[in-house]
Amino acid sequence: MAAASDRPGEFELIARHFAPIAGAGGLGLVDDAGLLRPARGYEIVVTTDALVAGVHFFPDDPPASIARKALAVNLSDLAAKGARPDGFVLTLALPQGWTESWLADFAAGLSRIAGEGGCPLIGGDTVSTPGPLTLSITAFGSVPAGRMVPRSGAKPGDLVLVSGTIGDGALGLKAHGPARPAWVAQLGAAERDFLADRYLHPQPRLALAEALQRHASAAMDVSDGLIGDLAKLLKASGVGADIELDAVPLSPAARAAVMADPALAELAWTGGDDYEILCTMPEREYSALMAGAGEISVPLTQIGRITAEAGVVHYREKGRVREFAHGSFSHF
Amino acid sequence: MAAASDRPGEFELIARHFAPIAGAGGLGLVDDAGLLRPARGYEIVVTTDALVAGVHFFPDDPPASIARKALAVNLSDLAAKGARPDGFVLTLALPQGWTESWLADFAAGLSRIAGEGGCPLIGGDTVSTPGPLTLSITAFGSVPAGRMVPRSGAKPGDLVLVSGTIGDGALGLKAHGPARPAWVAQLGAAERDFLADRYLHPQPRLALAEALQRHASAAMDVSDGLIGDLAKLLKASGVGADIELDAVPLSPAARAAVMADPALAELAWTGGDDYEILCTMPEREYSALMAGAGEISVPLTQIGRITAEAGVVHYREKGRVREFAHGSFSHF
Repeated sequence: MAAASDRPGEFELIARHFAPIAGAGGLGLVDDAGLLRPARGYEIVVTTDALVAGVHFFPDDPPASIARKALAVNLSDLAAKGARPDGFVLTLALPQGWTESWLADFAAGLSRIAGEGGCPLIGGDTVSTPGPLTLSITAFGSVPAGRMVPRSGAKPGDLVLVSGTIGDGALGLKAHGPARPAWVAQLGAAERDFLADRYLHPQPRLALAEALQRHASAAMDVSDGLIGDLAKLLKASGVGADIELDAVPLSPAARAAVMADPALAELAWTGGDDYEILCTMPEREYSALMAGAGEISVPLTQIGRITAEAGVVHYREKGRVREFAHGSFSHF
Repeated sequence: MAAASDRPGEFELIARHFAPIAGAGGLGLVDDAGLLRPARGYEIVVTTDALVAGVHFFPDDPPASIARKALAVNLSDLAAKGARPDGFVLTLALPQGWTESWLADFAAGLSRIAGEGGCPLIGGDTVSTPGPLTLSITAFGSVPAGRMVPRSGAKPGDLVLVSGTIGDGALGLKAHGPARPAWVAQLGAAERDFLADRYLHPQPRLALAEALQRHASAAMDVSDGLIGDLAKLLKASGVGADIELDAVPLSPAARAAVMADPALAELAWTGGDDYEILCTMPEREYSALMAGAGEISVPLTQIGRITAEAGVVHYREKGRVREFAHGSFSHF
C-alpha cells in the first residue's frame, strides 16, 4: 500500500478531495511517499495521535469538526514543543456505509484547519474497516536544532503557567453529548454553545510556539487534564510544584457552570480536552516575555511555582490543601 | 493526547514494551513528540500505511507477524524511494479484550523488524477501540536532496524490472487463510509454508535502496498487484509499456501452484502483497548496476520495456496478446 495510495476509486477520491489540501511535499499525492525538506540547522518535531469514533468524538459529529479536531490536537503538540508546522500525513479507516458527501465535508474541514495552521497534507492512506471510523495523523514541525521545548526542563523556582482557559473542553463534552446533566440546562444558550465549541473545535496555540521556544524551560499541551498532565511534566523534570487552584483561569461559561454545580471545578481541572499549553519558565524569562508587548496573542496565567521536591505537588484551594484521587482520564 | 502518550497504565505499557525499541529521536518515549535530525543535504521521505484486523491480516495471526508486516510494508515504500530508514511512529487502537501477553509478542516482533531495518521507534499513541485492532505506521527515511526515486520518471526505452519473485504473497494468502482452495492440498508442505511465510512476513527490499537511488528512473513497491501497480507507474510517468508475462519471475512454490491450477498465474500477476520493487531504468544504467558485482543481493529481472504510448500496455503471454479486466485489488 502506498503513502498516497491510489487504488481505483481511492485514486479518484484522493484527487477530488485531498489533493487540494496537499503541499509541495505531497508531490500531488500521486507518489508512494511525501517529502520533508528541513531548512539548514533545523530539526523535525514529529507528533502522532489516533482518534476513534465513539471514543474520541461522537460518530455523528459534523465531519468537518472531526477533521478539524484530528489535526488540531497534533498542531497543539507542535505548538507546545515550540515548532512551526511543516505538514502532516493522514490515515483514514472508513466504516461501512460511508458516503462521498461525508468525505467531502471531512476534507473541507481538514482543508480549513490545514490552511489556518500552515500545515499542508503530504501523504496518506485510506482503507476500509468493519469497525468505527478511525483516523491517525502524524504531523511535522520545524525547530532550530536543539531548541525543541521538552517536558523535562522545569527547574525549582520556575513559574508554572497555562494558556487560555482550562476546563471548557471537559465541560463542553457534557454540554455537547447526548446525556446532558442538569447543570447544562442552567446555562444560557451562548454559554452552552461556547463550551460545546471549545470541545468540538480546539484551538491549537500555534501563536505561542515562538515564545515558548525562546522562554520556556518545559512545556506540553493539556489534553488529558491539567492535574494529570502537570504530574507528567513534573515527573519528566524530576521536580514538584505548589499550585494555586484558584488561579487556574476559567472562562465566563465555565465559571457559570461551576456556579451551577461547584463539583464541576474538579472536572475542569482534571477533565482534559483543553488543548491549552502548560509550561514553566524562570521568572526573568516571564518578565522578558511580558516586556515584548504584543508578542503573544493568547494570555498566559501563572498558577504556581516549581519546587525541588520531586513528584510532590501541593494544591491549594481557598487557602486549604487539596488532593486528587484521579489525576486524568485514562484509556485503560 | 501526546505523541508518546502516557496516561496511567499506558505509561507503564510504553515503558515496558515500547521504550526498548525507541531510538535517540524517541526521547525515551516520555515527551510529547519525537525528533528527526536529518543530515545536511538530505531530505526526509515520509510514508504511511494503515492496517485493520480482518482486512489486512487475520485477527488471530501471530502478533509478532502483524507487527512485522505493519512496519515492513512501510520499509518497502522507503526502499522503493531509494531512502535509508531513520525511524517510525506507531498508533495502535487496541480492541476489547486485548492482553498484555499479546502486546508483549507484538512489541517483540516490532523490535526485531525495527532492528533489522535500522528503523527505531520515535513516538506513538495507544488508544482503545470498540472495533478491530487497527494500526497506523508513519516511517521516515533519508535521501540526498532531490534524489528520491519518483513514480513519474520512466522514459521510453527504459527497461521494466522487478525484484525477487511475484505472486507469492497473493498465493500465500490462500495457503494461509481459513478457506483453502483445492490446489493448496496439491502443494508440498514446504511450498505451502514458503508461500504463507511470504504473505505473513514480507521482506522489505532495503538492500536495493542505494542501487535504485543511483540507477532507477522510476520505482514503487508492488503492494496492490504487479499489473495494477505498473499501470499507476505508467500513468504517473505518462508512458506505456510492452510486458512479457512469461518473464515475470515466479518462485518454485508459485510455479508448483500454477502447475496445479493454471488460472493462478493471473492471481500471481494481479493479486498483490508482494512488497517487491517495480522499477525502470535506462539500459546503460542497468549495465552499470550489473557491472558493480555484488552490489545488490536481491535479483532484478527484466519483464519488459517502456514505450512512448501513454497509458497503453501490451501484455504478451506465450507470444499472444493478453488483457486484464481487473488490474489490482481495490478497497472500494
